[in-house]
Amino acid sequence: MDKKENIEILAIGTEILTGHTVNTNAAYIAKHLMDINLEVSRQIVAPDAGERLKAILTEIVARASLVIVTGGLGPTCDDNTRQIVAQLLGCSFRFDEEIAAELAQRYGANLMSLKDQATVLHPAIILKNTIGTAPGFIVQKNQTTVILLPGIPEEMKVMLGQVLDYLKSHFLDGVKTFTRKCNFFGLTESTVDVFLKQLQSNYPEVEFGIYSSQGVLTVQVTKKSEQKDPTLLLLDTLIQTIKNTFSGHFFDTPSNTIEEAIHNLFCQHNWTLSCAESCTGGQLASALTYFPGSSEYFLGGIVPYSNTQKIHILGVTPKSIEEDGAVSARVVSQMAENMLTLANSDYSLAVSGIAGPNGGTTEKPVGTIWAAIAQRGRPPFVWKFLAKGNRQLIIKKTINTILGQLLKICHQRLGEK
Amino acid sequence: MDKKENIEILAIGTEILTGHTVNTNAAYIAKHLMDINLEVSRQIVAPDAGERLKAILTEIVARASLVIVTGGLGPTCDDNTRQIVAQLLGCSFRFDEEIAAELAQRYGANLMSLKDQATVLHPAIILKNTIGTAPGFIVQKNQTTVILLPGIPEEMKVMLGQVLDYLKSHFLDGVKTFTRKCNFFGLTESTVDVFLKQLQSNYPEVEFGIYSSQGVLTVQVTKKSEQKDPTLLLLDTLIQTIKNTFSGHFFDTPSNTIEEAIHNLFCQHNWTLSCAESCTGGQLASALTYFPGSSEYFLGGIVPYSNTQKIHILGVTPKSIEEDGAVSARVVSQMAENMLTLANSDYSLAVSGIAGPNGGTTEKPVGTIWAAIAQRGRPPFVWKFLAKGNRQLIIKKTINTILGQLLKICHQRLGEK
Repeated sequence: MDKKENIEILAIGTEILTGHTVNTNAAYIAKHLMDINLEVSRQIVAPDAGERLKAILTEIVARASLVIVTGGLGPTCDDNTRQIVAQLLGCSFRFDEEIAAELAQRYGANLMSLKDQATVLHPAIILKNTIGTAPGFIVQKNQTTVILLPGIPEEMKVMLGQVLDYLKSHFLDGVKTFTRKCNFFGLTESTVDVFLKQLQSNYPEVEFGIYSSQGVLTVQVTKKSEQKDPTLLLLDTLIQTIKNTFSGHFFDTPSNTIEEAIHNLFCQHNWTLSCAESCTGGQLASALTYFPGSSEYFLGGIVPYSNTQKIHILGVTPKSIEEDGAVSARVVSQMAENMLTLANSDYSLAVSGIAGPNGGTTEKPVGTIWAAIAQRGRPPFVWKFLAKGNRQLIIKKTINTILGQLLKICHQRLGEK
Repeated sequence: MDKKENIEILAIGTEILTGHTVNTNAAYIAKHLMDINLEVSRQIVAPDAGERLKAILTEIVARASLVIVTGGLGPTCDDNTRQIVAQLLGCSFRFDEEIAAELAQRYGANLMSLKDQATVLHPAIILKNTIGTAPGFIVQKNQTTVILLPGIPEEMKVMLGQVLDYLKSHFLDGVKTFTRKCNFFGLTESTVDVFLKQLQSNYPEVEFGIYSSQGVLTVQVTKKSEQKDPTLLLLDTLIQTIKNTFSGHFFDTPSNTIEEAIHNLFCQHNWTLSCAESCTGGQLASALTYFPGSSEYFLGGIVPYSNTQKIHILGVTPKSIEEDGAVSARVVSQMAENMLTLANSDYSLAVSGIAGPNGGTTEKPVGTIWAAIAQRGRPPFVWKFLAKGNRQLIIKKTINTILGQLLKICHQRLGEK
């Protein structure tokens, strides 16, 4: 295997190795590398300190042209990644006055870890950490580039932008992997698969992939090539063909989430939204407030988890709960319409269902969901669906289904104009 | 490194390598191996098929005494793990009538993949897959045991039980790794680190680790030994010493989350809880409804994202918002007390703050949080703190800080009795 083709991600952390923490960093980094046409060939998780970490890092430096390392940069006793990398790549250490001053400004001059965290690898490009204490590093030796990032996902994410900029200008030559993707809601994998198989037979040099995640489908087209422009043109044309085929179900957001599509649409049109959610327990509101600026359109939500709350705060009639149950068309209709009035919003969402694992019956098994979308001056749209999986999966699928339906209704409304 | 000590987990799947899917299997398996005192020394992710997978498997078989592989067992063209393992370990294939009959019974005799999936490695112990089509295998050669499991998490989980039973009777001799951990809220990493460094100097044979996650600290003590009982006694004593030192901040839950501690406490004492949250946008309610059975104690929540909602639904006085702003002691006090009344709960939580990235001022910078905890018959506990980081980090730290404070208040109340 040519060393030049080897890009590896190493996550350092005994907490990951022992299963205490799931390695979300590797997935996040791999996805962003793919976005700039760099394909990861291996992911590794190594323990915090000691000989085993050293052995693994030695192996990787011999094998890979680029390795992105997360973790082990903190000031505590189990963090010695910097020492090992310095040994392997022949770096020294120096005290960085600028980082020291910046840490003192943010955390006070008495910060215990200040001296440790301002001691940086040399020579190295320093990656500033604006929300934590550990700076990152880009170190190069011979054929290998080692990039060190903190293990805390939020810090890593903030700093990865600088890394991608660096890689774009220093790492992109020769055969690259080009990729384009698009997202759909409310479609089954097999529907799209049939169409992609037809395309595949016409374009054998392109790799087609479908990934399904909690009700959102992502279609990805990939091609290896030395030539950027014609390859991207081909991939863009293919994506456009796929989009056109399933146009009613398409959305396009940087985060690949429907909530971002809703966020953009509502901000753009100055519409307002509210929600009343039972079985999703606050996660629908969380999804709608995930992006900064969501207070522009999201007015508020109610989580009437108990029946008493549905009655007292939302004004659901006790009779409708008695007769039809809390998980019913009648109850979600009332929830949606009363929420619309309470919040005085343009749209409101309501959901009541059985997230499980208990509470299911033969008539209403676990995963039974009733949802309603109310809008000013029109009758509410009320429907039922079955979300399969465990509790968390059911909740996430429910949210994606409801937001997908809202998107569809909004698109229809825009089409009517 | 002694081969006997090397236990590795290999996840096969291009969807994991490209970051589309997070490798939750490795964490799940590692955690269950730790439970039977087997310590994973490395986790690896490899692509689906081809030379690179073969090279990685060859390396692992040379290095490890045990490798648990997930993925690549299906009937599609990109699944050739069985072929590679057969080559490496000198196995052949045989058609298994029993598996064929069982698949025909579940999926019908026309199942396209029946012949492929009933063709098994030989010699190997067969692991039955009761919910999918791909059987698993335990193959042994010389010093290496290779265990093959499907990549679909639900199938892997169902089959891991058989694997653990096998490992308990075949793999647990000689040196094992023992571990104990405990969790704290409301402490800084450096405070605990100073204490652990003292302990470390007295117990050089024990490995001490601290992991920090959004305001929750986990301390882990680990020791390798051949002798179970005295080792666990030592680790338990050390954990007890650490707990005693930081007793006001301790909690113990399988998921290592404060919300589970709250959940258990409220279920146990039949207390009820409600919340009114602005800047956390539904995530506080989500945390409180994460665990099944939370409807036993969580009555409901309100997410009054706009000031109008704070006034109309929660009854906050317009004057208090005008004079002190929505992020103030006065407003969160009213939110907590009115929520307590609305929900008629034993406790209620309220939070209002600036999650950012915009909306901060010199007086109230991004991360400024006011929170209140109301309880029946007592004045509410109201306090202010600064949560650092980006929007998501600020929200998570805010939730952990509030739930930590609630835990403290509940513990105090229990102590008073």
